[in-house]
This record gives sequence, C-alpha cells and structure tokens, in this order.
Amino acid sequence: MVKVAVLGYGTVGSGVVEVLSENKELVSKKSGTEVSVKYILDLRDFPGDTYEKLIIHDFNIILNDPEVTVVCETMGGVGAAYQFSKQCLEKGKSVCTSNKELVAKHGPELLKIAKEHYCSYLFEASVGGGIPIIRPIMDALAAEKIESILGILNGTTNFILTKMEKEGADFDAVLKLAQELGYAERNPEADVEGHDACRKISILSSLMLGKNVDSEKVYTEGITKITAEDFAFAKKAGYTIKILGVSEAQGEGEVLTYVSPFFIENSHPLAMVNDVFNGIFVTGNMVGDTMYYGKGAGKLPTASAVAADVIDAARHQGKNVPCYWDEDDAKLADISDASFKYYVRVKADALDELKSLAPAGKLIEADVAGQAGYITEKICERDFVKIAEKLGDKMLGRLRVYSAK
Amino acid sequence: MVKVAVLGYGTVGSGVVEVLSENKELVSKKSGTEVSVKYILDLRDFPGDTYEKLIIHDFNIILNDPEVTVVCETMGGVGAAYQFSKQCLEKGKSVCTSNKELVAKHGPELLKIAKEHYCSYLFEASVGGGIPIIRPIMDALAAEKIESILGILNGTTNFILTKMEKEGADFDAVLKLAQELGYAERNPEADVEGHDACRKISILSSLMLGKNVDSEKVYTEGITKITAEDFAFAKKAGYTIKILGVSEAQGEGEVLTYVSPFFIENSHPLAMVNDVFNGIFVTGNMVGDTMYYGKGAGKLPTASAVAADVIDAARHQGKNVPCYWDEDDAKLADISDASFKYYVRVKADALDELKSLAPAGKLIEADVAGQAGYITEKICERDFVKIAEKLGDKMLGRLRVYSAK
Repeated sequence: MVKVAVLGYGTVGSGVVEVLSENKELVSKKSGTEVSVKYILDLRDFPGDTYEKLIIHDFNIILNDPEVTVVCETMGGVGAAYQFSKQCLEKGKSVCTSNKELVAKHGPELLKIAKEHYCSYLFEASVGGGIPIIRPIMDALAAEKIESILGILNGTTNFILTKMEKEGADFDAVLKLAQELGYAERNPEADVEGHDACRKISILSSLMLGKNVDSEKVYTEGITKITAEDFAFAKKAGYTIKILGVSEAQGEGEVLTYVSPFFIENSHPLAMVNDVFNGIFVTGNMVGDTMYYGKGAGKLPTASAVAADVIDAARHQGKNVPCYWDEDDAKLADISDASFKYYVRVKADALDELKSLAPAGKLIEADVAGQAGYITEKICERDFVKIAEKLGDKMLGRLRVYSAK
Repeated sequence: MVKVAVLGYGTVGSGVVEVLSENKELVSKKSGTEVSVKYILDLRDFPGDTYEKLIIHDFNIILNDPEVTVVCETMGGVGAAYQFSKQCLEKGKSVCTSNKELVAKHGPELLKIAKEHYCSYLFEASVGGGIPIIRPIMDALAAEKIESILGILNGTTNFILTKMEKEGADFDAVLKLAQELGYAERNPEADVEGHDACRKISILSSLMLGKNVDSEKVYTEGITKITAEDFAFAKKAGYTIKILGVSEAQGEGEVLTYVSPFFIENSHPLAMVNDVFNGIFVTGNMVGDTMYYGKGAGKLPTASAVAADVIDAARHQGKNVPCYWDEDDAKLADISDASFKYYVRVKADALDELKSLAPAGKLIEADVAGQAGYITEKICERDFVKIAEKLGDKMLGRLRVYSAK
C-alpha cells in the first residue's frame, strides 16, 4: 500500500488527485500495490470539495507520517517547495514534481539527496506537460549519445506565434487574446521572454549531458519584437517562426544551450507543431532523429505525468530510480562563437548597404511597403552583431535561421 | 558486471554489438555496472570480423554459462528464437528482442515465464525501431487509460506511398525502386500486405489493454491496390494516403484493432510522416493526443532500442521489469460493425448509380479521364460492402477515410 500526499491544491495538484482517483484501479495495478491519496496540503480550505477531508494545513503531519512514502510537489516556486522537497527526501519519501523552476535550480542537489536516502526525485511533468520526454531521454534512449535537442517547449508562445502567422496579426493584439483565453498570464514575461523555455531546455540539456546546465547562464531571447512583417517575409521564403529551446553537443565536452526564436523551414517536423502544442526533436548518435509531440501544459496532461511518476516511485519503494545529472557544471559554449544564417528586415533604402555587408545572402521577394527582407550567408554571431551595429536603426528586425548541423 | 550474449549476427545483431561497444562507457554508467558482450551466436563464421573471437555456434554454451545474465535475441522467426528465448528465461536470463513476430505470437507466455523466474522479457525494438514507444506506453503514460493508438508502423510501405504521392507514380514501379534501394524485400508481402504493421499494432494494442490481441485475428488490408489515380483524387480533396495500424477502445471492454490504408487529412500530424519514417499517435483519457516520430527500422536505430533494454535488464538484475499483458484474449470488435466515410473511385458513367446508393456524399472535383471520385457519408462497413457489390466492376477502387472519433 502506498499513501500519497499532494502539496498544493491548485490546478496541477487538484489534477493529480483527480487522475489518481479516476484511474485508481489502473494506477494500483501498474504500481503493484494499492495507491491512495492521504493528505492534500494547502493554506486554503475547500469547503464542499470532494476531497475536503484530506485537506491539511500543517506540512509536519505529512513529514512525520511514516505511512506517506510518496509526495507530489505541485506548489511551484523555489521557496517552500524547495524546503519541503528536501525534507521529504531526507526522510526517504519520494518526491514527484511538476515544478520546472525548482528542478532547473536545485535538480542535482535534490537528486543526490534522494539517492542517499533510497528514494526518488522524479520530474516527468516539469517539461512538456503530459508528453513523455524525460523518460524517453533517460530510459528508452539510454544507450544513445544524444547529439542535440530542439524543442517547442512553451505552449503560450507557440499559440501566439501560430495566431500571428495564421491571421497576420501583431504581437500585442495576439498576446491580449491569449490572456483573455487564459493561455497567457496577466504578467506574461516568463513565457514571452523565453524564461520558461529556458528552464525546460536547461533540464533537458542537463539530462542529455549528465552534468548541470545552469539555466541562469543560458542565453535567452523572447518573441516580443516579432512583427506581422516578419511573418510575411518568412512565409514568402518558405519558413515559419518558432521559439525553440536548443541544446547542441559541441566538440570537447562543450554544449551550446540557448533559447531563441527562429526562422524554421516549413518542411521541418517542428514547423507543424501549432497552437498550444509542444514538440521536442531529439537526435541521437545511433537512432538519428526522433520527435515527441503533445499538449505541453494543462491540468490533466501535467497531472497525468505526475501520476506516472507516482507509479514509478511506488514500484521502486525503498530504492532510488537513477538519474544521471551530476552537480558538476557543464561547459557552456558562447553563442557569440556560433554561426547562423540571419534573416534581416531593413528599411528599403538600406538594402544596398546590407547587401554590401553580407554579400552572399538572398533577397526575399515579398511585397512589404518600404521594407526589404534578406537572408544572409552563415555568419559568426560575433560578426553579425557588428553588421547590426553598422545598420543601426535602419535594421527593423532580425531572426536566426535554423538549419540542421 | 553484466555479460551479454547476442543471438544472431545479422543486421540487428551486429548493430547491437556495435552500439554496446561504441557507447560502452555510457551503457555501463547507465546500467550501474560494466556491460560487455561475451558471446555472439551464429551458424556462420565471420573471419576477419572485429568480434570474430566472440562467435560461437552452440547455444548451450550460452544457456549453461551462469555469467551470462542478459541475452539479445536478434535472430527473427518463431522457431529456434522461441525455443532459445524460453530456455534463457527459464534459467533466469533476461531476454531483449527486436523480434516482433515472436513478441506478437508468444509475448504473454514469455512475459509470464520471465516473471516466474525473476528476469525480464523486453521488446522496445519490436515496434517503431528506435522510436521510444513501448516504454512511453508502459511507463510514462502509466496513469492513462489509453483510448486509441494510430500508427504509421511500417517504413517500407510509407516510403512507397510517399513516392507515389510525390511523383504520381504507380505502385508497381515504386515497389521496384524500393527493392532496388534495399527498402523492400525481394518478397515484399509481409510489408505491402500489412502483416508487419499488423504484428506491431497487435503488440501495442495488447499493451494498451493489458490483454492479448491475437495478431492472426486482426483485420489486415495492404496497399497493393492503390493507384496513382487514388492519389490524384486524395490530393484534390485535401488528403493523403497512409497505411495505419489502428486500435480503438470501444465500450464494454472491446477493442477494434485493424490495419488499413486510409485517406487522412493533410492537417493531421501523421500526414507529414514521410519516407521511411514511422509515427505513432497515442490518445489517453488524461493527456489527450501525443505523438512519437522517428526511423522505424534500420540497423542502428533498432539496435539502440535493444541496447536500452539491455541497460534496463542490467539495472533490474534478479528482478522482473513488469509488463501488463496477460494471456487472456482481448475481446475484438468486428470491423464490419464499424462505420467509416469511404472514398470510392468509379467509372465516370457509374457516378449516378453511386450517388443514388450513398446520396449524402461529396464529389471530388478532379480531372481524371473517364473516372470519378466520391466520398460517402459515414456508413456501416457491412452496408458499404453491399453497395460495393452492387457497383461490381464499375467500382475501380475504395479506401476508408480516417476521422477522429
């Protein structure tokens, strides 16, 4: 018998209780033992709620109840969530979480504590919501040297970009719509500036390497500067625009990890991942290209991933489910040393200057009044920055162009 | 330390030896113990081969060597492969296999033997080559009631259909090309008649239900009758043609499992899975739609999946990795009771008759001399068969049209 405590009865937490209850028979069968929720920790009361009687306000009841062996941390944040997770693991209670911020920040430390205390720290729900991606990378592709990961990791920004493309609309208008539909927060910064995607690609990148990729050192660029004109030029040139988390193994143990919006060819499988869907493209040295696709967020998909972790923890009671993510920092390559083709949008009368600065590029023949679009040859980022400086405010926009290595 | 024996040094077997050697450090790290290949069983000699010294011809050496705890069965077939797998499992040696024919035919029996002898029978490589699909269904989606699986499961037929679409070519010409390129066997029946896809969807369907779906009872239709005209009509109507393995949970514990070519809308994520790639679309009651994509065959992708199983077996030495696939037969629904829209191609002068038989359909306005294409309303298969009989040889072709439930 496994008794579960759920920390935080918000969207994901209530989803976890729902999945564990609705699919209880299945969950117990797969766990090899009966699984049930014993406590729900929240500061609030929930009068009339089906699970009202399980609500408690004192974390110590959970911590000191030896019957509770699996804890679902669905609180979010890196304060109390961190303290509670640590204390649970130190007591040998496995922790299953959807908290990408915490996993990105303290993952290796919590994994180490779990290992020392014969329990597990599991976080399938932290990336890609309900899409199986942590386990495929850790288990199914266990024999692979993963060479690169490329992901549409944030549903909000993908929704915004899809709408902008389909309706020729501007960023601000679509953001407002996304907020009205509940797809974007009132303070949308974590999504639109790429921070959410940054945490997720840092987690995936750490798993890919077995070393720690510090999300705070990862170059991150958001989508707030993208305009309807950029989409007009993209379309004409056979591209769409997606914000991608990228991690590419370089020579000598280095990794280039970053978040950036890209021109990506319409023929790339990620180009057709639209709306709130996520898609993660993983390339291994033996298997080649694989892709994982699904809803990257939402109450039940995310809760389903937490529940899968509960099953895994229940199956491995008293044991550690191994995870190869050491505390050693990975060697991060500098994006300034990377080379890209760049899409550049300039005032029409600056086209000749741009052509003289990057002569081997290609004009995009699109009909945008007073503006010109151009795709440069492959240039080192460091050199492109100089070109951009020379153009000054004659350059209206620029995006990296994705091309497979 | 884990010593591995590889049964069969053909394409996949030699790939397994290559992956376990090339990624040896990684494989050992992930296994938590050193993993190395001790024997390779084959009837042939391989003079000059790097691993020549590991080649043996007597299976009993492997069976009676207590040092060998993991065996990779990459022989194929259901004769010796079955006997050898059974004997290994009875001795407590875990077996990792790419042999879909054997898994489809004797899976539940071998899983039961493994469980009784505290070892594992693992078969990630049997479906989708290197694409992680068995583990996502069993582990990452463990808390899900899976409602349907829809897969492009055979690379050869997907290559043929993609070529037919892109080049407007006929089946026979493209099959010949596929044979020349080594994508199709000289005897292509197992692929083009759908038998290979049938075994794979039967395996996935069994895992989805936890009961046995007998592949010999699964309705299977191949692609040999599809013509360039069918593609012309499909294109005009916004579809492409794919052969899909389908498994849909029905009411009352029944499942409808079958293999059939389909008209599928261009906007469906599976429509853009082209060439030798596979794509598997899994819908769960909590997570909604997810998709897995990659190369469904080939030496190294398949070998990589076998090697991932070796790691799993090594991690769980002396224990059984559970798999929910009982020997009880699943209740199979009859495709005759299912309803579909049908695309029907008739001689031009039979169009009125077709319209009178299925009046609520829609004409496809395509320019194919002497022929007409039409998509019917949703009709029970049993009733459609009667319509087809009435049309007799005035009906030149017909395909089911895929629509989500």
